[in-house]
Amino acid sequence: MKKIGIIGGTGYTGVELLKILKNHPEIAKISIAANSTANKDLYEVLPELVSIVDDIKIQTVEELLENNYDVIFLALPHAEAHNLVPMLLNRDTLIIDLGGDFRLSYCDDYKKWYGFEHLHQNLLDSKTYGLAEFVISYNFKLIANPGCYPTSILLAVIPIIKLMNNNIESINTVSYSGLSGAGKSLRPDLLLSEMYGNVKAYNILKHRHEIEIYQQMNKYGYNKQFSFIPHLLPVMRGIYSTTIITLKNKVNKQDIINFYKEIYKDEIFVRVRNNVPELKWVVNTNFCDIGIEVRDNVIVINSAIDNLLKGASGQAIQNMNKYFGFNQTLGLL
Amino acid sequence: MKKIGIIGGTGYTGVELLKILKNHPEIAKISIAANSTANKDLYEVLPELVSIVDDIKIQTVEELLENNYDVIFLALPHAEAHNLVPMLLNRDTLIIDLGGDFRLSYCDDYKKWYGFEHLHQNLLDSKTYGLAEFVISYNFKLIANPGCYPTSILLAVIPIIKLMNNNIESINTVSYSGLSGAGKSLRPDLLLSEMYGNVKAYNILKHRHEIEIYQQMNKYGYNKQFSFIPHLLPVMRGIYSTTIITLKNKVNKQDIINFYKEIYKDEIFVRVRNNVPELKWVVNTNFCDIGIEVRDNVIVINSAIDNLLKGASGQAIQNMNKYFGFNQTLGLL
Amino acid sequence: MKKIGIIGGTGYTGVELLKILKNHPEIAKISIAANSTANKDLYEVLPELVSIVDDIKIQTVEELLENNYDVIFLALPHAEAHNLVPMLLNRDTLIIDLGGDFRLSYCDDYKKWYGFEHLHQNLLDSKTYGLAEFVISYNFKLIANPGCYPTSILLAVIPIIKLMNNNIESINTVSYSGLSGAGKSLRPDLLLSEMYGNVKAYNILKHRHEIEIYQQMNKYGYNKQFSFIPHLLPVMRGIYSTTIITLKNKVNKQDIINFYKEIYKDEIFVRVRNNVPELKWVVNTNFCDIGIEVRDNVIVINSAIDNLLKGASGQAIQNMNKYFGFNQTLGLL
Amino acid sequence: MKKIGIIGGTGYTGVELLKILKNHPEIAKISIAANSTANKDLYEVLPELVSIVDDIKIQTVEELLENNYDVIFLALPHAEAHNLVPMLLNRDTLIIDLGGDFRLSYCDDYKKWYGFEHLHQNLLDSKTYGLAEFVISYNFKLIANPGCYPTSILLAVIPIIKLMNNNIESINTVSYSGLSGAGKSLRPDLLLSEMYGNVKAYNILKHRHEIEIYQQMNKYGYNKQFSFIPHLLPVMRGIYSTTIITLKNKVNKQDIINFYKEIYKDEIFVRVRNNVPELKWVVNTNFCDIGIEVRDNVIVINSAIDNLLKGASGQAIQNMNKYFGFNQTLGLL
Repeated sequence: MKKIGIIGGTGYTGVELLKILKNHPEIAKISIAANSTANKDLYEVLPELVSIVDDIKIQTVEELLENNYDVIFLALPHAEAHNLVPMLLNRDTLIIDLGGDFRLSYCDDYKKWYGFEHLHQNLLDSKTYGLAEFVISYNFKLIANPGCYPTSILLAVIPIIKLMNNNIESINTVSYSGLSGAGKSLRPDLLLSEMYGNVKAYNILKHRHEIEIYQQMNKYGYNKQFSFIPHLLPVMRGIYSTTIITLKNKVNKQDIINFYKEIYKDEIFVRVRNNVPELKWVVNTNFCDIGIEVRDNVIVINSAIDNLLKGASGQAIQNMNKYFGFNQTLGLL
Repeated sequence: MKKIGIIGGTGYTGVELLKILKNHPEIAKISIAANSTANKDLYEVLPELVSIVDDIKIQTVEELLENNYDVIFLALPHAEAHNLVPMLLNRDTLIIDLGGDFRLSYCDDYKKWYGFEHLHQNLLDSKTYGLAEFVISYNFKLIANPGCYPTSILLAVIPIIKLMNNNIESINTVSYSGLSGAGKSLRPDLLLSEMYGNVKAYNILKHRHEIEIYQQMNKYGYNKQFSFIPHLLPVMRGIYSTTIITLKNKVNKQDIINFYKEIYKDEIFVRVRNNVPELKWVVNTNFCDIGIEVRDNVIVINSAIDNLLKGASGQAIQNMNKYFGFNQTLGLL
Repeated sequence: MKKIGIIGGTGYTGVELLKILKNHPEIAKISIAANSTANKDLYEVLPELVSIVDDIKIQTVEELLENNYDVIFLALPHAEAHNLVPMLLNRDTLIIDLGGDFRLSYCDDYKKWYGFEHLHQNLLDSKTYGLAEFVISYNFKLIANPGCYPTSILLAVIPIIKLMNNNIESINTVSYSGLSGAGKSLRPDLLLSEMYGNVKAYNILKHRHEIEIYQQMNKYGYNKQFSFIPHLLPVMRGIYSTTIITLKNKVNKQDIINFYKEIYKDEIFVRVRNNVPELKWVVNTNFCDIGIEVRDNVIVINSAIDNLLKGASGQAIQNMNKYFGFNQTLGLL
Repeated sequence: MKKIGIIGGTGYTGVELLKILKNHPEIAKISIAANSTANKDLYEVLPELVSIVDDIKIQTVEELLENNYDVIFLALPHAEAHNLVPMLLNRDTLIIDLGGDFRLSYCDDYKKWYGFEHLHQNLLDSKTYGLAEFVISYNFKLIANPGCYPTSILLAVIPIIKLMNNNIESINTVSYSGLSGAGKSLRPDLLLSEMYGNVKAYNILKHRHEIEIYQQMNKYGYNKQFSFIPHLLPVMRGIYSTTIITLKNKVNKQDIINFYKEIYKDEIFVRVRNNVPELKWVVNTNFCDIGIEVRDNVIVINSAIDNLLKGASGQAIQNMNKYFGFNQTLGLL
């Protein structure tokens, strides 16, 4: 039975962690810290949780760290996990970071894409990039939980890269994300009045997740054109990614689908479809649904996830389950 | 040809004023002031207006007031119009206040319902309460444009009060409003992520519009129970009010409908329906649609308006038109 | 371990039953019949269920009835359960009818409100009206699961009727329901294009649920004015009811809240709030959240449920749990 | 002053035509035919139009054709306009077909993409493809009004094809459309309950608009890879297209933007933006907003239109205006 600490626990991903852990048979005790809501009761901050989880006092980070935990989940703004993790690693605690501070490969990337000075190249080298279906072994106590867009896109493209990297000319992805991806930030463009019936692209060719995705593609050998264009979708949750892969040579649709089914045959959370997936099929679940269409040398892959679950808290628990050797579905079905 | 100044011009009501005035044949020139966006170009702040209205520089309130206007529209936070209006009245300008600072009858009401000290009882006495269909004469240069909820409810109940005040036992109204009613305020509960698929009542039995409505009902003789329960509706615009009127004695449905049609027979902007109105019929228009149902001694009236038009900017222009003796529909159809 | 049959199983309530029963520890086997989708695989009809429940063949009603079940859930159009139930009752099976065919008290009511000839007054007398929190004993094998609106309204008003029936002058309720309440019917007014940003009242003072609610109120002694005005809310799921109760005499708000908390102190699925409930707190749960506001002799009660869970399938399982003496929360938390 | 007939007049595009023509200074009289609603009053079918347009009797197509018109707008299901147009052309009437029956280049295309036998190759050769900004002369009495997706995409790509066709390697477009694009069809997947919070791709690489777009690209010389992936967006109206153009060689972003601004400098309805366009900027307008982003040899163009206006009825009126030599903005600003 594991003891859990959640730091940054009252945002959207924190709520999802709490709901999942409540139904997890291997969890003994949960503590939560969140500086903006510290010293309040959980029920006051998140009244929807009454009678679902037990009420507890939200702590400051300092208070929470007075005790020891088997796992600490970090859901913090950029650069904050960066400062906290080295100290936590001395405690022999598994750290699962839901933010972006340890996802990239090089300190320099952080200056360019995140705008802060990263001081821990050794942790970037050692961390486990936790794309759960593709982690071979969890050999370090720091898991960088992937970003929401990267999860939806990498699960869609890694198999084809594995299958025929040399045949691929370019990969271009258009993604639409519900607004919970931006958290509870008080930005004018996240108001319902501003986004109702609206859509817009943003951070075109310069979103932080683009470099994260591309570096993972690199690991599997792909190093040609990749373009990523994220959009705001006027709903609360879910990501729908449409990836267009241009090949040198024609391929057969059924061959590709069969290969994807083979790759994911033991992975319950990836459902390779014979038809086009719908976003609602995955909302409130930890599934990633994948649909594949082919014409001659063009492959179109649609992939859908819940950004707060498979794209954040769900995958974090899946990583925790795998790390401890539990059935990876515990708490998640 | 009239010269127009708009103070507080880049919120939702300001945009609607600009769009209407653009198509108004009696308007010569428009100036806009908004302290939060002063010195910017209109197109920068409101890019949707490119090629629809002319680009102009947004001024500070002080700059705008260096010139004279035939009409000044005020769209300001509470208490700000209160301070500005006495000075403006010295200029022989028509002032149409879209805020609440001059809608109520007594200074004391402002302390209780709005939380500020109102110093101008004489203006509360003199102002024209601009419920356009019921203004008999515009005999003062200050028009208090009604609140959005009050417009939807008063147009629904004044006729029945006129017809049979003594027969009425109680009036209870449940209203749902799109979130633009709260403007562009950066409140967490106005985020799309918080309100998507959501509904909540708020300010139950203590909304500022309740006293505004009740004081107008009083003018027509009604002084029994009135309860008002507003709700947030997860859409951008529109108000849908459901009013339940309990009578002492039974009435006939068709008689009531006929009376409403008679009352509003010369009022193009009130459409008395034979069926139940839908909110979408009035969105983006200056109409108030009214539907009436009766069973024995209970009358149910549904009334729908666009909160930004009939409930704010549209009615403000309608008042301006009537004040100057123009056709009241100018710019509004 | 119970054997379950679901007749009419592939609509919105059927899906919810399947999801709940999947996680229910006392269920051995589930069969589904639905004439419109008979002979198809469940995964073909409801692809979102892949890997969540087991795939099974959807049967015709006749095929399903070749076997015996401990419980049969009926989710059928009006009049169809009416014809089927007498035959099923001979089989010593618990029947939980999610439709309206056995909710009312008298055959005559069915002619007037439902438009069909009801032939089984004895079953109307014998059935258990399954408002779960108020069922004293399950003494008959037919449970009429309450309507969605009635669930939200009766949980809000039965306590006050119990407390002070003689003090109540009138009860008026305005409810807003997400469109899943109408099922998957192909009606033009249920299209997204017709309802996006829209609201409308419907069946004002003549909705079938009004008589259902009123007859239950009668059982607790209330027989004065009750008006019910339902509205379509442009979201998928959830009901938000606003009930205005006019009393002869003033009451104290805290006394009322305390009484409600006392009444529901052992009922986990009713959460009496100190603040105003939000619809999102109950969506995807079996909770009914209640908020109470008082001014002098007027009580306003807001109550919120998920129409497909507490208002249909969730409460059906809750009734099943109670009937068999299980913990009523099995499968529901 | 022109006399107008609208055939198929009570769908979404018909309503928009009526609203625009109401404010058009060169229109004398409007007749409407729609077989599904023939003999009803317009106000009965479209109650939102009360007091906005005059009430008229909806005719059958036969009745409408008893009179002559200067312009007939056709808004009919596939294959119906195909049968009607040859007869109408004998009457010396301008015909503007809002459907797809005359958009493609060859009869054979209709068998493959639309599934019907097209018998009028001569009309396909003669018709004017009415992409309003690029029509050089209106030299035939049949205007094929472009599809909604093609309008949004062609306005975005024709300039770059004109500028550097030889430099383009591939063009791939991902589009999201509000559900009004599918009209009022009673399809289960268009229900609000099915699409709320949902997204899905459809007709991937086989949508009829793909061949329409590609044939127009061909006219400007482009004949390499084009892929088109349309999606359903859970809102009522608007299309947002994201086009990724891969070049052989690098280009400079500002050069490209300047070229687009030059191409469209006299075209009020195309607004080339310096920032990323938002869908809401164009909803309820005849504008197409275009935003351009460049990185090395990749250009991303976002283009947004209202599918019912610029993508249908608005552009139809724009074509009518240009055909008769009116100012192209009449009725449209």
